[in-house]
Amino acid sequence: MRVDVVFGGDKIAPSDVAGRVVAIIDVLRASTTIAAALANGARAVIPFETSEEVVNRSKSLERSDVLLAGERKMLPISGFDLGNSPNEFTRDVVEGKTILMTTTNGTLAIVNTAGAREVVVASYANYSAVLAMLRAALRGGADITIVCAGRDRQFALEDAGCAGRYVTNVTKRLTNVSINDAAHACALIDRRYGESINRLFEASEHGRLLGNAGFADDLAICGQLDAFPVIPVYQDRQITKLGPERER
Amino acid sequence: MRVDVVFGGDKIAPSDVAGRVVAIIDVLRASTTIAAALANGARAVIPFETSEEVVNRSKSLERSDVLLAGERKMLPISGFDLGNSPNEFTRDVVEGKTILMTTTNGTLAIVNTAGAREVVVASYANYSAVLAMLRAALRGGADITIVCAGRDRQFALEDAGCAGRYVTNVTKRLTNVSINDAAHACALIDRRYGESINRLFEASEHGRLLGNAGFADDLAICGQLDAFPVIPVYQDRQITKLGPERER
Repeated sequence: MRVDVVFGGDKIAPSDVAGRVVAIIDVLRASTTIAAALANGARAVIPFETSEEVVNRSKSLERSDVLLAGERKMLPISGFDLGNSPNEFTRDVVEGKTILMTTTNGTLAIVNTAGAREVVVASYANYSAVLAMLRAALRGGADITIVCAGRDRQFALEDAGCAGRYVTNVTKRLTNVSINDAAHACALIDRRYGESINRLFEASEHGRLLGNAGFADDLAICGQLDAFPVIPVYQDRQITKLGPERER
Repeated sequence: MRVDVVFGGDKIAPSDVAGRVVAIIDVLRASTTIAAALANGARAVIPFETSEEVVNRSKSLERSDVLLAGERKMLPISGFDLGNSPNEFTRDVVEGKTILMTTTNGTLAIVNTAGAREVVVASYANYSAVLAMLRAALRGGADITIVCAGRDRQFALEDAGCAGRYVTNVTKRLTNVSINDAAHACALIDRRYGESINRLFEASEHGRLLGNAGFADDLAICGQLDAFPVIPVYQDRQITKLGPERER
């Protein structure tokens, strides 16, 4: 079995995902926000590459059923209901709603996974839930690819650190698992920061940018382990919560 | 000033290199081989993306003046004079010759640097010489981009580790230098392996592949710090040695 990491949602080759279980990580903030939305009762999150696609899709749906969400350069999109702060996706706002979402990095990675056996959205905020799912998949013989979405098509330290935590713990006590060099590097980054996700965010360019732009609350929630314990799976072009409530 | 790292010679954006001093790292083995060739008296190394280009160019030159060199999937190219093992590029073979070279990863990165202020080829084997040049450039106000060529368009641990050593030491005792997340990650990898370049190669997929394919001697020479103390600069589409002998 293999556990490999790919840096950059735009760098995914078909062979990186074909037949594999794929975890998409965009810690700051799309992965965390998606977990928050589903944990708080959103029916589904539908990712789009562009804000135009979000608007177009919303026209074919009952307006009261949907929320338009996303960001460009960290800021909310004009005319949209929500930005990309997990704190906005509270139960009273999102429960029962379908969220049409576009973000700079995370949604691009998610829609780039054609051919994958299963796609899951991973972050610190839903760490243990997704880890359990990935471990089960690996034990069942699946190969895993973890995609670090990154920022503006660049390597992002916080995504790599989070990926490293998954790599280390998904392979723990399993023999016969090979990892690629990127996975190895991620594990080193996670080991360096250990439990201190805040220090990881302080070291990351994106973390500092968000802090300086007034999103310190977002950093706090994105670094809160298991704050939103859901397994968001991407299937039939939408992300829903894996589990008994999925068919609701 | 900035010191940034880019993972992947095929991922270089014009803005990554425009006006910057750019160091290209392909430790295993193109960077090391180029340093060996120039240290042993080759007149120049001319990098090409494809073996067809090498053959075509050789036809316009005096056959006794040139050597055709390169590899595909680690192995020498049929009909070429040399492969990509630094050990082949001895003084009696290369002195006075122009080397027409194509490799899987390194030469692609080198030819992808249009717009750079200066391009230098870096490895462990010419570490101190290139470090001195980069430090002088940074002190002079230049921004630096270090490109990790990688392997088959994937992140390679050995290139990142070598880049990390440059990042750490080029910025040492300088204030006002910003580094990107990739540079930060590289520095962590270098710190993990420290002086043990052999252990870094053992941890890297490419290092293990080369070892298993019978290239253990190459690994030894590629990990030998300052074995070929030259500064190879890429200018006017050829790589020559910076220094008093350059005009020879």
